[in-house]
Amino acid sequence: MPDPGLLTAFPTPTDSAIVIEHIAEEFTSTCPLTGHPDFGTVTLRYQPAPRAAPAGQRGCVELKSYKLYLHSFRNEGIFYEAVTDRIRDDLARLLTPAWLQIVTNWRGRGGIRSVIRADHGPVPAEYRGSL
Amino acid sequence: MPDPGLLTAFPTPTDSAIVIEHIAEEFTSTCPLTGHPDFGTVTLRYQPAPRAAPAGQRGCVELKSYKLYLHSFRNEGIFYEAVTDRIRDDLARLLTPAWLQIVTNWRGRGGIRSVIRADHGPVPAEYRGSL
Amino acid sequence: MPDPGLLTAFPTPTDSAIVIEHIAEEFTSTCPLTGHPDFGTVTLRYQPAPRAAPAGQRGCVELKSYKLYLHSFRNEGIFYEAVTDRIRDDLARLLTPAWLQIVTNWRGRGGIRSVIRADHGPVPAEYRGSL
Amino acid sequence: MPDPGLLTAFPTPTDSAIVIEHIAEEFTSTCPLTGHPDFGTVTLRYQPAPRAAPAGQRGCVELKSYKLYLHSFRNEGIFYEAVTDRIRDDLARLLTPAWLQIVTNWRGRGGIRSVIRADHGPVPAEYRGSL
Amino acid sequence: MPDPGLLTAFPTPTDSAIVIEHIAEEFTSTCPLTGHPDFGTVTLRYQPAPRAAPAGQRGCVELKSYKLYLHSFRNEGIFYEAVTDRIRDDLARLLTPAWLQIVTNWRGRGGIRSVIRADHGPVPAEYRGSL
Amino acid sequence: MPDPGLLTAFPTPTDSAIVIEHIAEEFTSTCPLTGHPDFGTVTLRYQPAPRAAPAGQRGCVELKSYKLYLHSFRNEGIFYEAVTDRIRDDLARLLTPAWLQIVTNWRGRGGIRSVIRADHGPVPAEYRGSL
Amino acid sequence: MPDPGLLTAFPTPTDSAIVIEHIAEEFTSTCPLTGHPDFGTVTLRYQPAPRAAPAGQRGCVELKSYKLYLHSFRNEGIFYEAVTDRIRDDLARLLTPAWLQIVTNWRGRGGIRSVIRADHGPVPAEYRGSL
Amino acid sequence: MPDPGLLTAFPTPTDSAIVIEHIAEEFTSTCPLTGHPDFGTVTLRYQPAPRAAPAGQRGCVELKSYKLYLHSFRNEGIFYEAVTDRIRDDLARLLTPAWLQIVTNWRGRGGIRSVIRADHGPVPAEYRGSL
Amino acid sequence: MPDPGLLTAFPTPTDSAIVIEHIAEEFTSTCPLTGHPDFGTVTLRYQPAPRAAPAGQRGCVELKSYKLYLHSFRNEGIFYEAVTDRIRDDLARLLTPAWLQIVTNWRGRGGIRSVIRADHGPVPAEYRGSL
Amino acid sequence: MPDPGLLTAFPTPTDSAIVIEHIAEEFTSTCPLTGHPDFGTVTLRYQPAPRAAPAGQRGCVELKSYKLYLHSFRNEGIFYEAVTDRIRDDLARLLTPAWLQIVTNWRGRGGIRSVIRADHGPVPAEYRGSL
Repeated sequence: MPDPGLLTAFPTPTDSAIVIEHIAEEFTSTCPLTGHPDFGTVTLRYQPAPRAAPAGQRGCVELKSYKLYLHSFRNEGIFYEAVTDRIRDDLARLLTPAWLQIVTNWRGRGGIRSVIRADHGPVPAEYRGSL
Repeated sequence: MPDPGLLTAFPTPTDSAIVIEHIAEEFTSTCPLTGHPDFGTVTLRYQPAPRAAPAGQRGCVELKSYKLYLHSFRNEGIFYEAVTDRIRDDLARLLTPAWLQIVTNWRGRGGIRSVIRADHGPVPAEYRGSL
Repeated sequence: MPDPGLLTAFPTPTDSAIVIEHIAEEFTSTCPLTGHPDFGTVTLRYQPAPRAAPAGQRGCVELKSYKLYLHSFRNEGIFYEAVTDRIRDDLARLLTPAWLQIVTNWRGRGGIRSVIRADHGPVPAEYRGSL
Repeated sequence: MPDPGLLTAFPTPTDSAIVIEHIAEEFTSTCPLTGHPDFGTVTLRYQPAPRAAPAGQRGCVELKSYKLYLHSFRNEGIFYEAVTDRIRDDLARLLTPAWLQIVTNWRGRGGIRSVIRADHGPVPAEYRGSL
Repeated sequence: MPDPGLLTAFPTPTDSAIVIEHIAEEFTSTCPLTGHPDFGTVTLRYQPAPRAAPAGQRGCVELKSYKLYLHSFRNEGIFYEAVTDRIRDDLARLLTPAWLQIVTNWRGRGGIRSVIRADHGPVPAEYRGSL
Repeated sequence: MPDPGLLTAFPTPTDSAIVIEHIAEEFTSTCPLTGHPDFGTVTLRYQPAPRAAPAGQRGCVELKSYKLYLHSFRNEGIFYEAVTDRIRDDLARLLTPAWLQIVTNWRGRGGIRSVIRADHGPVPAEYRGSL
Repeated sequence: MPDPGLLTAFPTPTDSAIVIEHIAEEFTSTCPLTGHPDFGTVTLRYQPAPRAAPAGQRGCVELKSYKLYLHSFRNEGIFYEAVTDRIRDDLARLLTPAWLQIVTNWRGRGGIRSVIRADHGPVPAEYRGSL
Repeated sequence: MPDPGLLTAFPTPTDSAIVIEHIAEEFTSTCPLTGHPDFGTVTLRYQPAPRAAPAGQRGCVELKSYKLYLHSFRNEGIFYEAVTDRIRDDLARLLTPAWLQIVTNWRGRGGIRSVIRADHGPVPAEYRGSL
Repeated sequence: MPDPGLLTAFPTPTDSAIVIEHIAEEFTSTCPLTGHPDFGTVTLRYQPAPRAAPAGQRGCVELKSYKLYLHSFRNEGIFYEAVTDRIRDDLARLLTPAWLQIVTNWRGRGGIRSVIRADHGPVPAEYRGSL
Repeated sequence: MPDPGLLTAFPTPTDSAIVIEHIAEEFTSTCPLTGHPDFGTVTLRYQPAPRAAPAGQRGCVELKSYKLYLHSFRNEGIFYEAVTDRIRDDLARLLTPAWLQIVTNWRGRGGIRSVIRADHGPVPAEYRGSL
């Protein structure tokens, strides 16, 4: 079951704006209707809160904790749109980033591939458009 | 015969704006002049109406119903432009989306490949241009 | 319905051995169980009977007739293996070639792609193996 | 000899704006200096005049007539730039489109490939830049 | 847990020798040491027993049953080599084929990709070598 | 009209066996039935007669003469098989090579690509099979 | 030694704005420090001065003269940046174009590839960014 | 240990604005937590200070010194973000460029690839977005 | 320093012959002459000794131990040929396999890429040739 | 001018048979007829004489000396076949290898690419065929 409690963060290591992108090519969950597995790629992009952010703001997601968090979807029956929304919300809550974007790219079923994009905050133009 | 009655929708699962893209790589219809089969890829992109949309507004197209709808063009004699227009209009009517775009990409005949793009509503710049 | 009567042949234009390969990338039939469309590539390879072949032996398949023959599978409910066998048998009967090979390559369903190979006569080693 | 009389048009089948792209990958003409053949790809993009266009405005180019028109350059001795200009002018005159663009992409000679782009009317930003 | 009881077969539809290949690109199991998921492609190739095979010999694996069988490895902790061996043995027992081959191709960990090949019976030379 | 008189040869520059391959990616002729242009790649491979060959044996084809010879097919109405045969015969007559092979690879029509292979003399195994 | 005197121009063949791009994939010069050869691709893009340009303004670079000009760098010891600047300046002086751009793309040494871009005049946004 | 003292610069060779890009595809450092090696590509892009820059401003990084500087990270235990920041800061201090950008692209661990982008000064839009 | 003591093996899990291939794409060592880093891919292929092998024979290399062993070359000054030989000898000694092969594929220096292949025992034909 | 005196060798570092391949992708010479530059890739493959070879037999070519040797063709007017022969002969004389092979692959002129292969001694089957 998706478990945001697995996620940990560490302080942004710099005062200047950086953009971080993690591309997880081995995501799997299951279809809530048929129980069949779904396979896809999850791309996370964000600009972390600055190092000098106010108390309560976090920085960067720790990569191994993010991997385990993605693994926690493995046997969850959940739609494409809900996966995308859930990951965005869990990470936005954890990181309080300047902006954040999730793009999920699914291998598909029955000859149809799908891409879902969900943004949080002012995602710059150069990171919009499908992956 | 193309049958929009095959299409079903489900409510948008989130209040925040998302973009959904379905790429059907196995579309086929027939040429109304020669009866020869045409083969192409149909890309549907849209931003669904928000969850809290007024009554009468729908949300997201159900993927299996969309697949069957595309199959209903199989033996229809219909031009490239008309396929593109028809799919856009049927889905716009079903979904009342914030915006919607259809791009059809045809393998072509006689050494000429074709791409047709039809937009509905304010398609953002990052989703314009050919596929 | 698959119709071998659509096929026509013309005499091999040379006395020396040649190998001919036709790759049809836009084949479609339907699944006999679900009625869903199948899409694939059909590769035909053969060495035609020599120009001086005995009476009753034919030469090369006429390309347009072959295209129309492949189209005749469009709405046939037929398994991958049967498509492959049928095309091999129909062409071997038509052409009485030195050897002939059919390889069908299917886009697949549920994450599994399939390739079926059926040979007729002594196919040389360099044309064996999957496509 | 290039013959715009081969081109025919049909009325735009829709009132909403669409973009049409035809990519002819097998164009050939000859070099007016050396007589050697030139090979290239000709991409035509345009937004047709609306269905309700005033009298005298045409709509979409008929695909087979366009193919024959391109074939009429086969033995013409003509420079890259002139091919590009000529096709743009002939089609703009035929179609009176909202905008139209021709991009020719040449395999080249002596290790130099060339691309020529010619626009007619207000080509949108997303269709500018070389192919 | 891997369950060969999910597999079903159907009689070979032809008397002539054919070769069948199914490429499952979405296989996943877990590492028995770390519990982390493994992802890979499973390629099955075989020449089915002839239609006129003696009693007790089976023919071709039914594709949907094969898919469900592969899904049954999803939460199994099992090494690469054991996955490969197990699939070969389960299918050889089911199908009594002329020959059969399993090649597993793993995305890998720590910068090392792996391929495992296991043969049953006289696999022809053209199907040997890694995928 | 195809003109073998355009071809010239020069003596093989070495006594040891070499293999020469020329890949002409811009070949065009026309269809004798429809007059439409055909486009393809012509691959010539051969082992030239040794430098010390008996009188009357030639060596290597001069590259510019070969290019002009290929150009002479430009407006010829001729089938794929006949193009392949003709080039093989013209070059074999010119060069008296140890062996020679022509493979033509056509972009195709109506969704079917074609490859034709014609050998002269004992072409080694490593140069057989389709291109 | 780089010789702009090799360059010749011809009048722009049209009054409407066109964009011309020549991609020379076989450029070579030498490193002024080590004498080792450098290999790269030189891309020239420009919008020529209009046909009705004032006296003293030129049009389009003649392609063969451009090729010979590029060859004149062959044994010149010259840095990447200086090659790029020099070609831009020589062509801008020759052509007095609306704008012009040179992008050099070097295969590199010691595991580092390099790209240098030099603009002249108002290069449009769609032609900026690396090649 | 990363050593900016290895870096040397040379004066910008031109007064006009140019953009320089160096793509180092063989970067390696180590993970500060596990000691395992990390592998990635480091892309440096910048517009050098003009030739006529005030005293104290430098121009272009010397390529061999840059290579040795990158090598100095080989056995450093350092996070992705810190590598990116460090290279940007060291080069910005050395070169006082108009703008400068570092994009690091990591092969990744556990199925997740990462990209980090760090800008210095007004990086133009056409060089934003991940590589 | 290369340390075969890092390598561990486990018993072959099957009696039937299997082939195992591990492709390590992130190998690095250093040049013994210049101290510059070398980067390459190391492919290990082998048929393990059978499960019922005589005492003293080992089975399969444990993957994590192999990874650490490859890491131990990181700061070793060693030629391409010696790397290849060394890995082959260390693994052959550890595993006493039916046969074993190492292919190293180096990104190269000064525009020259290199591949080195070293075999142990009767490597089957289908695994010979360059990678 | 091609200078075999630039080549140096070092003793084969092993008693067991290895195969070495060097792929030089940046070769250039000039056409003896036109003076125009030719560009290509030179692949050298060989099995060196064993370490315990009789006096007078050499081992492996030193890579930097080989690079300089290839550079010495830069301004030589020489045909494709002669380049290939010359490199084979110079290296065979230097190394007295078990076998040796040169394959040159030329970017070509006038739309025709060329490949020349020259063998010395018993080149194994898996290294024959064009690159």
